[in-house]
Amino acid sequence: MSVPDITMMRIMGRWQGGASERLREAALGLFTTQGYDGTTVAEIAAAAGLTERTFFRHFADKREVLFVDQDEFERAFLGGLPESGDDPMALISGVLDGAATLFPEERRPWSRARQAVIIANIALQERELLKLSSLAFALTRALTSRGVDAASAALAAESAVTVFRTAFAVWVADGEKRTFADIQYSVFSRLRALLR
Amino acid sequence: MSVPDITMMRIMGRWQGGASERLREAALGLFTTQGYDGTTVAEIAAAAGLTERTFFRHFADKREVLFVDQDEFERAFLGGLPESGDDPMALISGVLDGAATLFPEERRPWSRARQAVIIANIALQERELLKLSSLAFALTRALTSRGVDAASAALAAESAVTVFRTAFAVWVADGEKRTFADIQYSVFSRLRALLR
Repeated sequence: MSVPDITMMRIMGRWQGGASERLREAALGLFTTQGYDGTTVAEIAAAAGLTERTFFRHFADKREVLFVDQDEFERAFLGGLPESGDDPMALISGVLDGAATLFPEERRPWSRARQAVIIANIALQERELLKLSSLAFALTRALTSRGVDAASAALAAESAVTVFRTAFAVWVADGEKRTFADIQYSVFSRLRALLR
Repeated sequence: MSVPDITMMRIMGRWQGGASERLREAALGLFTTQGYDGTTVAEIAAAAGLTERTFFRHFADKREVLFVDQDEFERAFLGGLPESGDDPMALISGVLDGAATLFPEERRPWSRARQAVIIANIALQERELLKLSSLAFALTRALTSRGVDAASAALAAESAVTVFRTAFAVWVADGEKRTFADIQYSVFSRLRALLR
């Protein structure tokens, strides 16, 4: 690939990222004020100053606006895995550290608004559960490839997802101030104490 | 309520149970042989020797045929709770014992066929995840009402569901002969060892 091609891809990538971000922000604002079911793709596109055609270049449907790229989501978790080792506890801790990078303080208002929209709608809840189930599957595969036996890998992955989603619900609660990492650590400790 | 009314309700209950059971069996047979998407409600009703109208008296749509009554499902788990006590470990064990009553040996062929249909279809997977998520919520509430603090109750409930679904996947695997209760016990022990 020639240099101009790469430059072109970078520029397009940046532009597309911008449009996608604007569409997400516009959608969440509309879902919050007028409800998810009461918002059309046309309204989202208009609020973002873009066309419906552009919307559908970025998202398959209205629901997908609320879901970040699954690969990117999973990569953050996997990115926390230590370079080597097959101790499930160390692997879970690494995965949770990776997850925490997805939720810096500046993301909290967005996550809080998104959570409120999702809780109010069964179809969105189903989609969210599928996302977490796919994540557990990806984590299981990663742990298995580290040499953890299949059953332990599945249980470790499910436990990591349980800690993550429990911590997430706490993190977006009204008035919560602790960092995502701190909350996850405390939830994980509690889970371990519980099953001792 | 007079005695004849009660007798009538019992008879209707039995009859309705019979029709519902026949519709389930017919549906699972068709889903297995010709696929879930390739099967219509009309075909299911015809295979059960019933009308479409009867079908819709029992199920809201085609998808629901594969899902037992959520209340009944949750009652089995809750039915295993010990009469008193607030030790989360004892409560989880009780809940798992309750779950095992749902899956006697004679149910295994049905569960195996159902699992194969669900795994092949994203919409069914989403519905299954929602069912388990509602279960976790009901268990959390039950544990909270026993005096377990909210965070521990949620984690204990999620762990019970993780053990249940992991055990379920093992129980329906080809060639698996152990009882549901035995598998659950071994999965639960493994989870505890893992998080020690």
